Amino acid sequence: MDITTQLEFIKKGTAEIVPEAELFQKLEEAGRQKKALRIKLGVDPSSPHIHLGNAVVIRKLRDFQQLGHQVVFIVGDFTGRIGDPSGRAATRRQLSEEEVKTNMATYKEQVGRILDVEKTEFRCNSEWLGRLTPFEIVKICSFQTVARMLERDDFSIRFKESRPIGIHEFLYPLFQGYDSVAIRADVELGGTEQKFNLLLGRELQIYYGQKPQVAVTMPILVGIDGVKRMGKSLSNYVGITESPKEIFGKIMSIPDNIIVHYFELATEISSSDLEKIKTALSKGENPRNFKARLGKEIVSLYHGKAAAEKAELEFDRIFKEKGLPEKIEEYRIEAGKKIWLVRLLVETGLVKTNSDARRLIQQGAVEIDGEMISDIEKELSLKKPIVIKVGKRRFLKIVPK
Amino acid sequence: MDITTQLEFIKKGTAEIVPEAELFQKLEEAGRQKKALRIKLGVDPSSPHIHLGNAVVIRKLRDFQQLGHQVVFIVGDFTGRIGDPSGRAATRRQLSEEEVKTNMATYKEQVGRILDVEKTEFRCNSEWLGRLTPFEIVKICSFQTVARMLERDDFSIRFKESRPIGIHEFLYPLFQGYDSVAIRADVELGGTEQKFNLLLGRELQIYYGQKPQVAVTMPILVGIDGVKRMGKSLSNYVGITESPKEIFGKIMSIPDNIIVHYFELATEISSSDLEKIKTALSKGENPRNFKARLGKEIVSLYHGKAAAEKAELEFDRIFKEKGLPEKIEEYRIEAGKKIWLVRLLVETGLVKTNSDARRLIQQGAVEIDGEMISDIEKELSLKKPIVIKVGKRRFLKIVPK
Repeated sequence: MDITTQLEFIKKGTAEIVPEAELFQKLEEAGRQKKALRIKLGVDPSSPHIHLGNAVVIRKLRDFQQLGHQVVFIVGDFTGRIGDPSGRAATRRQLSEEEVKTNMATYKEQVGRILDVEKTEFRCNSEWLGRLTPFEIVKICSFQTVARMLERDDFSIRFKESRPIGIHEFLYPLFQGYDSVAIRADVELGGTEQKFNLLLGRELQIYYGQKPQVAVTMPILVGIDGVKRMGKSLSNYVGITESPKEIFGKIMSIPDNIIVHYFELATEISSSDLEKIKTALSKGENPRNFKARLGKEIVSLYHGKAAAEKAELEFDRIFKEKGLPEKIEEYRIEAGKKIWLVRLLVETGLVKTNSDARRLIQQGAVEIDGEMISDIEKELSLKKPIVIKVGKRRFLKIVPK
Repeated sequence: MDITTQLEFIKKGTAEIVPEAELFQKLEEAGRQKKALRIKLGVDPSSPHIHLGNAVVIRKLRDFQQLGHQVVFIVGDFTGRIGDPSGRAATRRQLSEEEVKTNMATYKEQVGRILDVEKTEFRCNSEWLGRLTPFEIVKICSFQTVARMLERDDFSIRFKESRPIGIHEFLYPLFQGYDSVAIRADVELGGTEQKFNLLLGRELQIYYGQKPQVAVTMPILVGIDGVKRMGKSLSNYVGITESPKEIFGKIMSIPDNIIVHYFELATEISSSDLEKIKTALSKGENPRNFKARLGKEIVSLYHGKAAAEKAELEFDRIFKEKGLPEKIEEYRIEAGKKIWLVRLLVETGLVKTNSDARRLIQQGAVEIDGEMISDIEKELSLKKPIVIKVGKRRFLKIVPK
């Protein structure tokens, strides 16, 4: 492949390459000198489950790997300890060496579904960060200003809203940047929210007299709720090691407006196929068919084609058995808020009065997710969507938000 | 001495004691348990010359020492490396161990003129700060927020004015605070500008499960220019190991409006004597007499009474020999700016025209600090005041600002 074709191959699906001209140069130089570029990805070891959102970035790593470059997978066992910003009392628990090893093994196993692990360099950043002298840390900190750090979107918002930012949180991006220095990265990958950190790594490399890395950012995959970014803590994710059945089912539950987004970021279909799907959807073809295809494409990636076919069949069978219609209207309620079932039935218009609701419950005519409810005092507090069935034909999906 | 008397003794001359009630408790407890309180002072080793401004704080340490408490003198060889905030390119040079030892010896020698060094504990903070693990540093940083740190006056001003603050500068007060943890300080002394740092040390001790120190701040001594605080880098200072002649001469040069301020902070005169001086000055007595007394008081403190008497006599003799009047008018010019002597003579009104000035110079009628000037092209660039004499009676003191 010539350099332009390589660059096109890498560019596909990325959000941004900063600076693109430098990547071209690096690819060219690597080709000329027959040496591999070092492609960095850092991950937080506290949640070792890889989901489709993570996979967007890891699949891009694989593209580099396929071009013969050296992927360096950094498990942030040190930076992971600094942890997330929310509230200084909530200092994250230190991971033991044992736990890090276990998570590392889990990672390798999962990443192996995407990357060639034999050709991948796995590193823990405690290896170099844990050995920094206090003076070296001072030196790293002296390289960046407070004002510049506060330009980062999340910091700037929190600062403006007077929400606390621990000083140690400023160390996080600096340490992440130092990772690039330690492994002499040529390219670092991340989601678009990582742009600031990736560019900071670039600057830190210059500060340490190295050639700066190129930042390659990937778009953020939205969660299956269609609202927030896919994240482990948000339970709106699809893990790549979940069973074919689970993956397929979750994909069938996504809102129609993110079908194309998922085809783009979570599958390997060609651009022309993608265009055909867009056209068909805009012409009003039933989205359900495309969700089914999407589900199969994604299951195929991590479990193979046969498993994907099977998952679809099984899904259809269960769906029919439960007697659910293909399209159910949705009603949104506040997540986690307690609500009396009787009241909910009236509020949603499924029944007209409280006494109607009580009578129907007592007659066994109200089901939640296929299960008959007989307690007229029943209260709900929803974290995930449920389907309520009243009588034989009235269905409503209740979605917490 | 009972506790109330002790407290009064300590309070004398201080700016603030935070919280005073806790100091009372600590003094009481120390008395009851017959144990000494640990009184901390941290100093920057980069300028080992102790001046009258530093002495204000060190003399207060001596008060504690006289009450039987343990003075802990911390040389900030580690924090000194972090250095002053101005500009990240200007990272301060690391001090070698050799230099630290030399400075430490110099310190001891100077401090010995105020404190009983045999009873003083001298420590270098690299002893504990240099051994901090990266994770411990993260922990220390996690204890304070960015917003809180930006409340510190100097940071807040620089932040508002968009002047850069290096992230390492946030480490400085945290490390200084950690010094209090390391030596288990009961009291920390400092100038009023140190209040934020002293209170931060207090909070950090609580964070580490220790009893918090009491912050004792001392007023800032203004420099002999009467404008800025006394500081080594500002050359407006009087070093306590300077010769009696130098000290006396510098004191004689201070502006009248800081005479009382110096009596209050730089001498040991009683409150009643101070009142008498204030009254006399307000009644119009010649300030020169009080400056001479001030000079003698200060020289006595560091060189003894005899040296003080001698310094005064010598000063008077030189003054008379030079034939300078007791009172010379002052004229201010920009410090360091080049100015042609001829132009200066005209500008100040000492002569009327450039040609007058040239003629007088050629006739040998112009002197600077007692030295005849004959070069009509002479240019000046002033860093310290000079006295220009034109003819026999015209004197003018030129003061750079």
